[in-house]
Amino acid sequence: METDISTLAEAVAQLQASAAATNTIFAETYYFLSIPLMVLIHAGFLAYEMGASRSKNALASGIKNILAFAMIVPFFYFIGWWIYWAFPTGLSGSEGAMGISGIGYATEVAAPWSAFMGPNLDDKSSGVFFGAFVLFAATTASILSGALIERIRLTGFVVLAIVLGAFVWILAAAWGWHADGWLVTQWGYHDFGAAGVVHMIAGFFTLGVLLNLGPRVGKFNPDGSANQIAGHSMPMTLIGLMLIIAGFWGFLMACVIVPGEAWSWSTTMGATIYGTPMTLSGMTFNTIMGFAGGIIGAWMVTRDPFWMMSGALGGIISCAAGLDVWYPPMAFAIGFIGASAMPFVASFLERRGIDDAVGAFAVHGFLGMWGLLAVGIAAQGYPALAGEDVVTTSFLGQLVGAVTMGLLGFVPGYVVSLILKVTGQLRVPPEVEILGLDAVKVPSRAYPEGINASVSPAE
Amino acid sequence: METDISTLAEAVAQLQASAAATNTIFAETYYFLSIPLMVLIHAGFLAYEMGASRSKNALASGIKNILAFAMIVPFFYFIGWWIYWAFPTGLSGSEGAMGISGIGYATEVAAPWSAFMGPNLDDKSSGVFFGAFVLFAATTASILSGALIERIRLTGFVVLAIVLGAFVWILAAAWGWHADGWLVTQWGYHDFGAAGVVHMIAGFFTLGVLLNLGPRVGKFNPDGSANQIAGHSMPMTLIGLMLIIAGFWGFLMACVIVPGEAWSWSTTMGATIYGTPMTLSGMTFNTIMGFAGGIIGAWMVTRDPFWMMSGALGGIISCAAGLDVWYPPMAFAIGFIGASAMPFVASFLERRGIDDAVGAFAVHGFLGMWGLLAVGIAAQGYPALAGEDVVTTSFLGQLVGAVTMGLLGFVPGYVVSLILKVTGQLRVPPEVEILGLDAVKVPSRAYPEGINASVSPAE
Amino acid sequence: METDISTLAEAVAQLQASAAATNTIFAETYYFLSIPLMVLIHAGFLAYEMGASRSKNALASGIKNILAFAMIVPFFYFIGWWIYWAFPTGLSGSEGAMGISGIGYATEVAAPWSAFMGPNLDDKSSGVFFGAFVLFAATTASILSGALIERIRLTGFVVLAIVLGAFVWILAAAWGWHADGWLVTQWGYHDFGAAGVVHMIAGFFTLGVLLNLGPRVGKFNPDGSANQIAGHSMPMTLIGLMLIIAGFWGFLMACVIVPGEAWSWSTTMGATIYGTPMTLSGMTFNTIMGFAGGIIGAWMVTRDPFWMMSGALGGIISCAAGLDVWYPPMAFAIGFIGASAMPFVASFLERRGIDDAVGAFAVHGFLGMWGLLAVGIAAQGYPALAGEDVVTTSFLGQLVGAVTMGLLGFVPGYVVSLILKVTGQLRVPPEVEILGLDAVKVPSRAYPEGINASVSPAE
Repeated sequence: METDISTLAEAVAQLQASAAATNTIFAETYYFLSIPLMVLIHAGFLAYEMGASRSKNALASGIKNILAFAMIVPFFYFIGWWIYWAFPTGLSGSEGAMGISGIGYATEVAAPWSAFMGPNLDDKSSGVFFGAFVLFAATTASILSGALIERIRLTGFVVLAIVLGAFVWILAAAWGWHADGWLVTQWGYHDFGAAGVVHMIAGFFTLGVLLNLGPRVGKFNPDGSANQIAGHSMPMTLIGLMLIIAGFWGFLMACVIVPGEAWSWSTTMGATIYGTPMTLSGMTFNTIMGFAGGIIGAWMVTRDPFWMMSGALGGIISCAAGLDVWYPPMAFAIGFIGASAMPFVASFLERRGIDDAVGAFAVHGFLGMWGLLAVGIAAQGYPALAGEDVVTTSFLGQLVGAVTMGLLGFVPGYVVSLILKVTGQLRVPPEVEILGLDAVKVPSRAYPEGINASVSPAE
Repeated sequence: METDISTLAEAVAQLQASAAATNTIFAETYYFLSIPLMVLIHAGFLAYEMGASRSKNALASGIKNILAFAMIVPFFYFIGWWIYWAFPTGLSGSEGAMGISGIGYATEVAAPWSAFMGPNLDDKSSGVFFGAFVLFAATTASILSGALIERIRLTGFVVLAIVLGAFVWILAAAWGWHADGWLVTQWGYHDFGAAGVVHMIAGFFTLGVLLNLGPRVGKFNPDGSANQIAGHSMPMTLIGLMLIIAGFWGFLMACVIVPGEAWSWSTTMGATIYGTPMTLSGMTFNTIMGFAGGIIGAWMVTRDPFWMMSGALGGIISCAAGLDVWYPPMAFAIGFIGASAMPFVASFLERRGIDDAVGAFAVHGFLGMWGLLAVGIAAQGYPALAGEDVVTTSFLGQLVGAVTMGLLGFVPGYVVSLILKVTGQLRVPPEVEILGLDAVKVPSRAYPEGINASVSPAE
Repeated sequence: METDISTLAEAVAQLQASAAATNTIFAETYYFLSIPLMVLIHAGFLAYEMGASRSKNALASGIKNILAFAMIVPFFYFIGWWIYWAFPTGLSGSEGAMGISGIGYATEVAAPWSAFMGPNLDDKSSGVFFGAFVLFAATTASILSGALIERIRLTGFVVLAIVLGAFVWILAAAWGWHADGWLVTQWGYHDFGAAGVVHMIAGFFTLGVLLNLGPRVGKFNPDGSANQIAGHSMPMTLIGLMLIIAGFWGFLMACVIVPGEAWSWSTTMGATIYGTPMTLSGMTFNTIMGFAGGIIGAWMVTRDPFWMMSGALGGIISCAAGLDVWYPPMAFAIGFIGASAMPFVASFLERRGIDDAVGAFAVHGFLGMWGLLAVGIAAQGYPALAGEDVVTTSFLGQLVGAVTMGLLGFVPGYVVSLILKVTGQLRVPPEVEILGLDAVKVPSRAYPEGINASVSPAE
């Protein structure tokens, strides 16, 4: 037994170092693991979108999805990550109360020449955080992607994906998903699981683009009635959606700040990105109950497997803003209500001549908004930030947030797509659309043989 | 260097708090991560079942699978979780020796109004444990689901899935997968990886249902000989099975109690759910060797890729009850033997006029039983619980456990399906079955265009 | 407050034990989790290869892939793991400077009768390390597998897979991916992410086999010009490749030694397998930038989704050897350059009459080599080992490593396949190849019905 105080002090110092190291590598691993899970979201979206396309457009949809993911990465590295840290307090780029925002701070930690933007033995967090945020960015582009299939030009789409993924959503995140964000500090905006800053932004951006892009040839009849244009493989779409659900747990875990030594909000408590305390356990209850409510709601309204799996996602999105605070049966109800309404929102758009091929606005834009407002309705009065005497959540704050997210998504989507339309970069020519994008634009074939009955087996 | 003892004591106290916090968030993350992996099991089952259905029934199979998952969640939240804690000592609901069971305890920790059943800053384990158990529940329903495809009525199936997933298996888990469970405390029943409480239960429940459900139209000829009714996409089924294998590591990791501060069995040692020590390392050796033995065994007997991948799963299930104790070459042998026998069990059922569309009884029911008995044969004498002078594993104990699991699975499956049959809720009418469930019951189509040879590519 | 020094010493001792336990279970979990992610690589390869086969060979390709995975496991358990520890210093099997190599050491820790080769309550690392290495082994076999589809005999393939997965690559790992490896200690060879020891080895082994196996019937015309033999489902191939990308994060995380108490390189710092310090954060930046550069490079050269997704993988492989050290925009450039060159390498082989069905040599062999040389060109002078006065990375060292890997891969691949060819075990007869392997060798059918347009839905 150690009885000498200096020996003991030495042991304590060593223990402090090794315990801190364990905490740090745990935290680094935590965010690291969110990334392969979010890559599953992309495997899922790839399957989903190709399945939702007619076979003449299946590969063109896949190319679009893959290329958008790739293109967003360097833009996010060079600019997007800097935007997140530069503009929380608004476009002035001034420093916020927490001291982790403003142009000066951003340039220090997120400019591409910063020591934090590459391997650095003293920095065990920037890369994994960056990685998680890049995957969020790529998710926004995938949300957009599905709605526009079968007629958008690749160039135009890539421009839109970069604008959304490396500029628009990350500005929204700076405003509403950062402890110095003006929506948070001034309005008590609460959006734990990115219902607004990812889903609403992506959904409303998509809506803006759809207005300029127009419907697919054959979607609407001369009398204005709509035809269903079914994708070529519903099983592929359903499997893709279930992969998205698996990956979504990675998305949600990356919304948590784990307790730790160096850069966390607390040494002993998990927290939201705002610094308010929460637990993975609470979030798990609500995620799974929202998921179940969403499926059941969509099933009761439609009986359709596409809407059921969209409802699985939609149920989680409906609960996302308040996943840290809901009572689980309430999460079930919010998911159920949201997913029950979702198909009607999709029909509403369709009746207005808007051709959203996969219901992206209904699932992400509308239910992201519902998620924000649900917090305003049923979870008022929670502190929006760590510390004492802080602003609290309120219906008005959530409403201001929802309006901001709607505009911040819609306007750039509308304006950029209008510019692309005017310059002829938005849409493929009708003859290409009719023939199929794969035949004209893609050097390989989806199903060169078709799929005929296999020959008789060996036994 | 700190030399003042009160300063040092302060440092130690801080360190105790932060080390405990690291341990707690690690443990919470550990169970959290098992959940997306188990969602992959569901993505896999979805692909597997749709692929194993003829294309006229593909979406109906998918709907069934998705809806069962969703329906189990609220029932498990409101009742199932409470059952697990209430009835370990038997249906009396009395408290067990460990003090973590009985109706009083269950109501305290698992009633839906309990403070442990939702976000609670002082509870960093209930939600993630609950989540893992719900996914186990959903897995039991997926095991059932595949066997019944192409003729079961959705209503009947959902009822059966809820009975199995929110009542039957969790009662089995209370009895045999809980440190106060009577099978454990009285018989030394050892079932580390849920071979009995999940796989045998689900397999025997399925057998009970199949007896009432009857074979698909066209499965048997008037002379009693059987026809093979092949699914429409073997590649989809195989990919699904490999996703199940990936997800199975999540299932198995959730069978471990990690060492920790608050609620673990030990502060320094991983444990089974019974509190007996084990390591992830040992379990990994055995899982991978059982997997390999299963594939090779099934290949030698059948040469068929469907049975090979079923054997991959079956090999792991064969080893599951003793994954913590096998010598790895023994795990290979147990997996090999089990998977070699599996196709014969499937044929045996078929010759008796039972139409198990995917061999669910052979893979889960029979091999779960084999796994339990293998522990009784080759791993006798291990302590079944933590502590001194405890009951040990024995062949008799495993046999009692296997008989219990067989009956506890079979009887409710048989009785509930009989009630459903009598009330006309079990099976679709023959004309629907012949036409295909998708055409009659599903508002969308699996392959609206078929899959024809793609048009020529661009270059 | 504790004021008694012996009480405090007691508290410190307890804390040391519990902090060590947390670190140990974290580290064990870390490697454990790499395994299901790497099983996703196999789910991906399964989809990829079946999709890349004509439908008449789809199941034969799947069987090959599944069986190789299974067969490698016992061979790796009984021999491969022992080889890794026995031969780092060369075929003499002498002990190296670190004291963790040589025949004596290997027999102690890795002989199948060793206490480290199964459940052992005192060993919380061997099994999870072994598991990760087995999955690496299986990955090498999957790389080989794709190139040889549609004409290789199953027996011959399994022999080749075992030779590659349980002997050749692990000898390469002993030499170049072990702190006592002669390539490392003598030449400063640096191969963080196994660009050489996995990808180059597998690629060059494949090349050796392809020379003896010969092209598929119909691949080349009498004038020597090549025909494209497209697989039956490009969407299945693309989804498979995205699953491989998700799983690749598991592969890369298993290349890291996490800081810890017992067996790590450092108590406070993550390390490469050589013991040099690195961070997950740095690796994450570079992985994602290499991924993006690879897709964009392949897209600019080909516009083909198959090459884009191969470029995603190829971009990561190009950066793999130096993932711990690149500046992220450099990783983007290295991925971009590598993936841009990749299709030309594939064409080059094709013009020489070599039929690599999926471009495995170009993606893995060539880009693995490029990755090694890139470190030699742009990352010279890094210490190759932990400690003082150690050898550093150099162009010459990387060149020696690349030549060694090329030969160590190519020669056994060529020689073993030549023996198989001479003994008639390498290739199926031409009439079987023309009819399709599934019809002759497989007792089940891929698509018994074909995939025809679904019947009209219910509504």
